[in-house]
Amino acid sequence: MWREDIRVNSAWAEALTEAGIYTRSECEQIQSSLDVIAREFADNRFTFLPEDEDIHMAVERRLTELSGDIGARIHSGRSRNDQVMSDARLCLKREICDWVMALRELQSCLLQKALEYPDAILPGYTHWQQAQPILLSHYLLAVFWGFEATLDRLKDYYGRLDVMPLGSGALAGSGIPVKRKPLAKRLGFGSISENSLYATGSRDVFAEFLTIIGGFFTHLSRAAGELQVWNTTEFGFVTFSDAFTTGSSMMPQKKNPDSLELLRGRSAAAITAANQLQILQRGLPMTYNRDLQEDKRVTFEQLDSAILCTQVFAGTIDGAEFHPEKMLAQCDSLLLATDMADYLVRKGVPFRKAHDIVGAIVGEAVRRDIALSAFTIAELTGYSEVFDQDVYDVLDLRTSLNNRNVDGGTGPKAVKKQIKLAEKAIARIEKHPFIAGS
Amino acid sequence: MWREDIRVNSAWAEALTEAGIYTRSECEQIQSSLDVIAREFADNRFTFLPEDEDIHMAVERRLTELSGDIGARIHSGRSRNDQVMSDARLCLKREICDWVMALRELQSCLLQKALEYPDAILPGYTHWQQAQPILLSHYLLAVFWGFEATLDRLKDYYGRLDVMPLGSGALAGSGIPVKRKPLAKRLGFGSISENSLYATGSRDVFAEFLTIIGGFFTHLSRAAGELQVWNTTEFGFVTFSDAFTTGSSMMPQKKNPDSLELLRGRSAAAITAANQLQILQRGLPMTYNRDLQEDKRVTFEQLDSAILCTQVFAGTIDGAEFHPEKMLAQCDSLLLATDMADYLVRKGVPFRKAHDIVGAIVGEAVRRDIALSAFTIAELTGYSEVFDQDVYDVLDLRTSLNNRNVDGGTGPKAVKKQIKLAEKAIARIEKHPFIAGS
Amino acid sequence: MWREDIRVNSAWAEALTEAGIYTRSECEQIQSSLDVIAREFADNRFTFLPEDEDIHMAVERRLTELSGDIGARIHSGRSRNDQVMSDARLCLKREICDWVMALRELQSCLLQKALEYPDAILPGYTHWQQAQPILLSHYLLAVFWGFEATLDRLKDYYGRLDVMPLGSGALAGSGIPVKRKPLAKRLGFGSISENSLYATGSRDVFAEFLTIIGGFFTHLSRAAGELQVWNTTEFGFVTFSDAFTTGSSMMPQKKNPDSLELLRGRSAAAITAANQLQILQRGLPMTYNRDLQEDKRVTFEQLDSAILCTQVFAGTIDGAEFHPEKMLAQCDSLLLATDMADYLVRKGVPFRKAHDIVGAIVGEAVRRDIALSAFTIAELTGYSEVFDQDVYDVLDLRTSLNNRNVDGGTGPKAVKKQIKLAEKAIARIEKHPFIAGS
Amino acid sequence: MWREDIRVNSAWAEALTEAGIYTRSECEQIQSSLDVIAREFADNRFTFLPEDEDIHMAVERRLTELSGDIGARIHSGRSRNDQVMSDARLCLKREICDWVMALRELQSCLLQKALEYPDAILPGYTHWQQAQPILLSHYLLAVFWGFEATLDRLKDYYGRLDVMPLGSGALAGSGIPVKRKPLAKRLGFGSISENSLYATGSRDVFAEFLTIIGGFFTHLSRAAGELQVWNTTEFGFVTFSDAFTTGSSMMPQKKNPDSLELLRGRSAAAITAANQLQILQRGLPMTYNRDLQEDKRVTFEQLDSAILCTQVFAGTIDGAEFHPEKMLAQCDSLLLATDMADYLVRKGVPFRKAHDIVGAIVGEAVRRDIALSAFTIAELTGYSEVFDQDVYDVLDLRTSLNNRNVDGGTGPKAVKKQIKLAEKAIARIEKHPFIAGS
Repeated sequence: MWREDIRVNSAWAEALTEAGIYTRSECEQIQSSLDVIAREFADNRFTFLPEDEDIHMAVERRLTELSGDIGARIHSGRSRNDQVMSDARLCLKREICDWVMALRELQSCLLQKALEYPDAILPGYTHWQQAQPILLSHYLLAVFWGFEATLDRLKDYYGRLDVMPLGSGALAGSGIPVKRKPLAKRLGFGSISENSLYATGSRDVFAEFLTIIGGFFTHLSRAAGELQVWNTTEFGFVTFSDAFTTGSSMMPQKKNPDSLELLRGRSAAAITAANQLQILQRGLPMTYNRDLQEDKRVTFEQLDSAILCTQVFAGTIDGAEFHPEKMLAQCDSLLLATDMADYLVRKGVPFRKAHDIVGAIVGEAVRRDIALSAFTIAELTGYSEVFDQDVYDVLDLRTSLNNRNVDGGTGPKAVKKQIKLAEKAIARIEKHPFIAGS
Repeated sequence: MWREDIRVNSAWAEALTEAGIYTRSECEQIQSSLDVIAREFADNRFTFLPEDEDIHMAVERRLTELSGDIGARIHSGRSRNDQVMSDARLCLKREICDWVMALRELQSCLLQKALEYPDAILPGYTHWQQAQPILLSHYLLAVFWGFEATLDRLKDYYGRLDVMPLGSGALAGSGIPVKRKPLAKRLGFGSISENSLYATGSRDVFAEFLTIIGGFFTHLSRAAGELQVWNTTEFGFVTFSDAFTTGSSMMPQKKNPDSLELLRGRSAAAITAANQLQILQRGLPMTYNRDLQEDKRVTFEQLDSAILCTQVFAGTIDGAEFHPEKMLAQCDSLLLATDMADYLVRKGVPFRKAHDIVGAIVGEAVRRDIALSAFTIAELTGYSEVFDQDVYDVLDLRTSLNNRNVDGGTGPKAVKKQIKLAEKAIARIEKHPFIAGS
Repeated sequence: MWREDIRVNSAWAEALTEAGIYTRSECEQIQSSLDVIAREFADNRFTFLPEDEDIHMAVERRLTELSGDIGARIHSGRSRNDQVMSDARLCLKREICDWVMALRELQSCLLQKALEYPDAILPGYTHWQQAQPILLSHYLLAVFWGFEATLDRLKDYYGRLDVMPLGSGALAGSGIPVKRKPLAKRLGFGSISENSLYATGSRDVFAEFLTIIGGFFTHLSRAAGELQVWNTTEFGFVTFSDAFTTGSSMMPQKKNPDSLELLRGRSAAAITAANQLQILQRGLPMTYNRDLQEDKRVTFEQLDSAILCTQVFAGTIDGAEFHPEKMLAQCDSLLLATDMADYLVRKGVPFRKAHDIVGAIVGEAVRRDIALSAFTIAELTGYSEVFDQDVYDVLDLRTSLNNRNVDGGTGPKAVKKQIKLAEKAIARIEKHPFIAGS
Repeated sequence: MWREDIRVNSAWAEALTEAGIYTRSECEQIQSSLDVIAREFADNRFTFLPEDEDIHMAVERRLTELSGDIGARIHSGRSRNDQVMSDARLCLKREICDWVMALRELQSCLLQKALEYPDAILPGYTHWQQAQPILLSHYLLAVFWGFEATLDRLKDYYGRLDVMPLGSGALAGSGIPVKRKPLAKRLGFGSISENSLYATGSRDVFAEFLTIIGGFFTHLSRAAGELQVWNTTEFGFVTFSDAFTTGSSMMPQKKNPDSLELLRGRSAAAITAANQLQILQRGLPMTYNRDLQEDKRVTFEQLDSAILCTQVFAGTIDGAEFHPEKMLAQCDSLLLATDMADYLVRKGVPFRKAHDIVGAIVGEAVRRDIALSAFTIAELTGYSEVFDQDVYDVLDLRTSLNNRNVDGGTGPKAVKKQIKLAEKAIARIEKHPFIAGS
């Protein structure tokens, strides 16, 4: 966070100069001392002393070493409370940029993989029971849109993060009449906080951010958990590159999808982190209490974890090899029962009645262990006179897909349209406020 | 939720008609049967049968009673999955409107109370230790802005809620080629879901909403907890109307601030509710699993609780009587130590040195148990030659406030400016999407 | 809770009599009025009035109707605080009994099922990858022991629950010098609370109980989630009775394992409930605050949910049909790689070297798509000269199992021993304090 | 954790020797190499290599360097899964000892402080409203008993922690027929795990431990929060030593009770940690998945935090100076309203009527702003003829206390009895299984 602390000190020196606390030349001395300190940090030469409580004290101490009394005046009209929150918001703005980029990269991997397998058919599940055939690309896009929701929430969050607390003092506002709006502009903040108590005493802005991370991990854990099952011998739908699997210390044959498990494991900490910051604040008086000191560690730790996990999942997807022939082989013939019912509906049978007729046929198919398409037309008309030769056209996986070209559906045309939307979403990211504002 | 279910059935009947499943006259029959059912609900005459699993089945069953086979065809191309999520989103949109209105009302109460006590001075605390004098109105506005953050989050959330899942079927998209965009328009949805799996399988939209409620309650619990302490005999800053306090079964003298405690108590459930919906989804496969059935109860229960608690807090504030004379009497004379240090800074003493000088004077004041203003000028110059007669002007609570007219500060001018911003915020609410879109 | 409230009133009347507040005949009048009230409740004839705030007020009001001034004296030296906590602890003791019985029943079902399939071999997984063969009965016993841990925690919890708060007043102790130890004996409490503040102000005893429920549901959710995957077409290891599955409104062929999903869904609420009661108490002053009123609803709701879910899972297990032939068919030949390595270890090869040798053979097996047992002895000795004809004895699933008769292992003899332990555990339950103390 | 890893390796070498894998002399070689490694760790000379994934691999690698092939055989019949859980359980047993000792120390500080202020009278609160007078020592003992509950839970937990997983292999049990009971004895475990799947796949034992820590912190946060309010200028009941307070960077007069705030702040992380481990396990298959790797960090981190916070609170209490004269000065005269009602009850007035009579008197006292004792006997008999001169004896704080000598009450005699119980509890600690078993 040294970058932000130096930046904030520099802008504050300018504000104090405007307010008449520093002369222009004193201000210049401060600026050049800050340059020195920045170089020391950049070159890894900055030395912390035992009495430096934190990075902020260290920078101020060094500034005083370099500029004497002038340096010792930098904390005028300022408090640790408004300074730290300003540093932290700036730092968060910068690091969230990295996450937004990583999310875009992950979305690209998902889209790329969808394009790689345009025709692969997957048994779609509800309740882990085969339900209806879907396209693998449709599935990958579902994963894609969940991450788009995260990006969308981040977009909205930007306005609440991009607010400058500096000038709020410890709680009551600075005792030096600094001009806060130019100060905010200098620091790249979009607006200034309206109330010094709320600005220094609340951590709502971190708590909200952690709920976004929690939402991201919730979605990630679903994809990770499902792919882990697809990777079993029994399913056999996907295998992962060696970089994202590991062996066993005991069992020589194992190739475990560890990266997926780690992502899912991390989600537990992420989900509880949002909880932690809300609990931390609950019932506290409105201003700063030292309880709040727990805020930054958990926030930045979870952000780092989110960035890392985004990258690991991108790598996992990128290196994944899907096995369309296995998916097809696993498709149960009963998968087309809904299509048979829809056929009857199109012929005028009320849906509830159609559902019952097909239910009876399915029961018979299970008893005789045959596919729906193995029934003769004579047998079918025994269930309903509406059945005709054209029912066999319906009992085909691709026909089923083609019947679902409704917007958002799994039909090949609808998926193509969806891919266009996904491409547009990715392109739009340059206008994402975290990128545009960085 | 009957309103929404009927509305969704009605719009779906239109869509099926466009798709050729219903004739126009069949559609009209459906519509008039739905009118009958709506009246039955409105007049509390609708009869549930034991076999009605839920409200959706009940409406469909009744529709079939009234319209025969035509009614039995209403579920064509539709699944419980996309229907229920559509009903729930519509219902949430409607009920959140009520909450937005209640929040505006609460903000009005806070603003009104701030206007009622324009001059009241409060000892401002950090760490529950007296820190600097502030205006009571400044404090009330801090509470105001925390609720503005909730309204701001709701505003952003609208776009994610206002998405229609209908037409997604169980997971793969409807088998009937309905036109989803006109359908969405008919139902008042701003957009349609892009992917049928994500639309039916995810509850991210509820989980996000519960995090907003959690954030609201976190802030509310802080104000409630602090006011409870202000209400002690020892502080004596505020008393509440009888409507929001209760007595004791054992102790005849008690007048307990129960409403504040109930608000704070409810916050624990609210904070965990967001957690619950994230845990519920964690690790599930991407589509519908019956675990998700737990989503609606917790969502609507928490929304009801948020609305109720918003109203109760508004009533509590409205009926609160603050006691400025008590606040003033409690102000410790050391409260102006920062002002004394700022005085030295303005005279050119480096802040760190000024802090030390005043620290020494404070120590002496504590030992002798006297106020800062009780030191003679001779005594003060013994600490620093910079002290002059004008230091006594600074050692005044109103001067201290007047020195904090920086934007967002507690100075009377700054607070007036802040009140203008608050009034604007309240006025802006008519454009809040939940109000505008209702 | 009426039973407990009447019981507590009755015992309190005795204590007041001993303390000289009631005469013996007044006490008898109270007792007979309480008998009347009890019958009214039992016969569902008790009438609540609008002014009855809760069950306790209702009983006291009715008592006063029946016994006049004598009844109006029942609340002497008592507070709502110590009364309610006494009622609640008694009620919890009674209802936990039901849960202990249900858990025993569930364990019996698991044990019964284990006995039903003594020879069934299952591919054991880690990371959802086939690892080593295990017995199905061994798996079912793992589930068994997790519930034993819940019973064990309940056993220890009994001592903390079985403490009487009555006589603590609102916070300071009763103003009437009642004898608390005989009072406790009368109410069936094992001990009395040592401190009136802690007794009336803390809800630790409920919070702890909810963590036990959370632990129970954590374990239950694991078994439920795994069985759901075993129930897929792809795995095919188990099918469930119709009573514990349901169909789909859209897809005629579906038979969804809903009961498992509901159990897993409920676990999210249970896990957060423990959290809620800790959050609720966090930071509160040590005595009663009305926040605490939220305690009972969540506690008894979760207990009801735990009992129900225990019964549902018992029914699910009882009605489950396992398919040993499918399990066997799914066993990958590489499953015996560890056994091949253990073979080398027994012949003196260091484990790490053995692991590498077998790793190379496994790699070759995968490339050639053959089983480990398909390698000729000549091929094997190419990897290590230690291989001999007897290696083929090892490459057998039953041999593998027989080599794991270490205590707690999956070998048939070890499992038999384990079943004896499980039978003993079930038998021990009669001494479980919740059963013994009821 | 190196101590435990070496100890487990040593015991495992013995077990392998008994099982015929090692000769006696090979075993001795292993033991002396382990001695070398232990000294290297103890002297801080042990060198980790980049390829050492974790401490376990590092020890095994070094063992192989020192003992060649013999070392390379140490992992025979063992898996990382059973080894790590054995190390972790041993390590937890050792570190919990430190916590138990720290808790005893904290209890001693509380008891000592209670003995230091035997006569100090405090206004007791409910709802932060003055309720009844209590002894300060009674309050401190309430805090004491909350920590006794933690010690009690730890006692019960010992039996579940003290179980050896070693010999469970990866999931199926060791392939080497080791004797697990003597192995457990050698390692100081009280029993062996009954089922290899449950032993290696479950983290219930850590999750339970974290709930105990959560309970501890819940209670600690209550005491910390209340003392923070007592430390305000307005209350003035307590001041803390400089070692446990800090100043402000901006405000020279501040002396903030930081240690209390840090304790309360830490409680948020502790409360969520238990949640995290339950969420982590929820829905996982029954055996090891790499998600579980997140278990140890959070467990040991929270244990360290609990030990530290126990010590900090002990220091805070030890250095606290209470101000009985301030407590007395703050006592409201209405504090004795319950005593006045109890007086009427003892004279035969039904409690409900007495409550109403005193309520009316209190109302009048508030209107006239006088104490209850300021009413003349003539005035009092106007409210009830039962009042007599002896009522003034009752309207005395010490009389009120003396009327509450019921067991567990705040009467001086009852508190003396309670102190005896507390002393006994402290003495009993030597028999606490974590101490006795260490």
